[in-house]
Amino acid sequence: MLANKMFDLIKNDLAELEVALQEAVSAPEKVITEIGTHLVKSGGKRLRPAIYFLAARCGEKFSLQEAMPLGVALEMMHMASLVHDDVIDSAATRRGSATANAKWGNQISILAGDYLFAKAFALVAESNYSKRVDRQLARLICDLSSGELIQNKEIYHASCDVDEYFERIAKKTANFIAIACQLGGDVAKLPEGYIQALYDFGYNVGMAFQLTDDLLDLTSDAKTLGKPAGNDILQGIVTLPAIRALEISPDRDELRQIVTDRNMTPEMVQRALEIVRASDGIEFTRKKVEEFLEGAVAALPEEMPEEIRESYRMIVSFVGGRKF
Amino acid sequence: MLANKMFDLIKNDLAELEVALQEAVSAPEKVITEIGTHLVKSGGKRLRPAIYFLAARCGEKFSLQEAMPLGVALEMMHMASLVHDDVIDSAATRRGSATANAKWGNQISILAGDYLFAKAFALVAESNYSKRVDRQLARLICDLSSGELIQNKEIYHASCDVDEYFERIAKKTANFIAIACQLGGDVAKLPEGYIQALYDFGYNVGMAFQLTDDLLDLTSDAKTLGKPAGNDILQGIVTLPAIRALEISPDRDELRQIVTDRNMTPEMVQRALEIVRASDGIEFTRKKVEEFLEGAVAALPEEMPEEIRESYRMIVSFVGGRKF
Repeated sequence: MLANKMFDLIKNDLAELEVALQEAVSAPEKVITEIGTHLVKSGGKRLRPAIYFLAARCGEKFSLQEAMPLGVALEMMHMASLVHDDVIDSAATRRGSATANAKWGNQISILAGDYLFAKAFALVAESNYSKRVDRQLARLICDLSSGELIQNKEIYHASCDVDEYFERIAKKTANFIAIACQLGGDVAKLPEGYIQALYDFGYNVGMAFQLTDDLLDLTSDAKTLGKPAGNDILQGIVTLPAIRALEISPDRDELRQIVTDRNMTPEMVQRALEIVRASDGIEFTRKKVEEFLEGAVAALPEEMPEEIRESYRMIVSFVGGRKF
Repeated sequence: MLANKMFDLIKNDLAELEVALQEAVSAPEKVITEIGTHLVKSGGKRLRPAIYFLAARCGEKFSLQEAMPLGVALEMMHMASLVHDDVIDSAATRRGSATANAKWGNQISILAGDYLFAKAFALVAESNYSKRVDRQLARLICDLSSGELIQNKEIYHASCDVDEYFERIAKKTANFIAIACQLGGDVAKLPEGYIQALYDFGYNVGMAFQLTDDLLDLTSDAKTLGKPAGNDILQGIVTLPAIRALEISPDRDELRQIVTDRNMTPEMVQRALEIVRASDGIEFTRKKVEEFLEGAVAALPEEMPEEIRESYRMIVSFVGGRKF
């Protein structure tokens, strides 16, 4: 319910976004249109463009036509990164649909991801945004891929460094949502301080979003999640709850052995989940989520129109309470 | 020898390009710097930035400092596409060095390619080029990846359509070289007609370049080529000489059976090479190369400074005579 209500204000923007996305992935090459259509139809929360449209509506006048290409570009970049992620993780399904790699193979999926990235840049370059927008988008993808690179380099390493972990998820997730929010302010020609506040809001929401993702992987079940719990551990990705358990659990040596084992069995994953759940790793992470969500609400500027602030507050509640 | 002489005029530009490339691939994340340095050190002809610098020097005044970021971006985009290509082809070596995927694995290489693409866009967005430059670069990557997509979709298909083939290599190769050349004219603020002529020159050189690549794969040997002859056929890529043979060879049915067989043996590749070599496919393709090279020379505008025109002519001779 909340998931629908929080986007009430921009219902029309998001409906038009779907049309524009479909158009953006349509190309003379049949295979591009096929893959693109599959990706658009597979859905998603459209969180990045939603946060962007809300910010863009904070200005004195708002033109959906002017704002749209950047909204489309943000979602396409997200899509492109998911396509490459799914190749990297050999994932077969996402959101209940077959992944591009499952349907078309790795080779075509790598190229389709490249195409979507480039098409997103093209959409923005062909519109009348400032050079700053191009800069932000390019930086965003640099950060996104370097965040993923570090994560990949660190798999099956039992790192215990909370700061390093925060830095990595900032690059991988929070920065993207922050820039989506900031770009809305940019397009709305808001003052610098306002734009900075929007960035801060997005950053805090993004950090909380990634941490709840990490929590869900440990606390949810296969039915709700669409994939088995403990998937991160299985893939060698050590998230905050496990980092905390590696620091304070009496069974930390056993946990360390499991998470660094590339030949981990499902039984070992179960045991790792037990150890993490028995530690205060989950509580510790929930507290961090709360802190970031409070940070997000605190960042919302006074000048923000009340109905937009209310939508952003609903997004904060949604992230705090999400079960999927 | 020719390979050195043709770049005499821009020797210094290319030397500084190496320094700037190394700087551009250096990042706080150690893994990025490692991969980037390996790629830069592995070398390459630097054909795209070279053709770009030459065009940029056609204007009244030339500033290497101003021209450099775009030269770096062009080479980085080329590098990024090669990194993804090598993942797609499971290639172990390129230019005698280990590929990124051989050294770091597919997962990290996919992300490193994404990073290089984004960093190239960032370099350009952070410089003072016109929005048109951003547009051209984004379009270039769209075309590049859609050309590769079509090629990938068509593997192990015995297509006989020469026009379709030309369209595909135009997107994959010629367009990149054409835009590199055109962007030089753009940066030099040359008149539109001049810029168009530079594009045409690059396009023709690029088409000839790809066709000689295709020829070398059929006519060269493992020692000169650094990979066994017939590699394209083995990978299911049907190039112009084979397309021609599929059309006119008395053994075309046998050839069709081989090139569409995903379980092709080395003996079958040898037999395919025999059939193509016995047809006029190689002569037919050589003639096309000559036509494109003549087209390139004919495209060079009257107003071009003689020493630059001479360098471009040497590039044309180099492409016509290249053995590697």
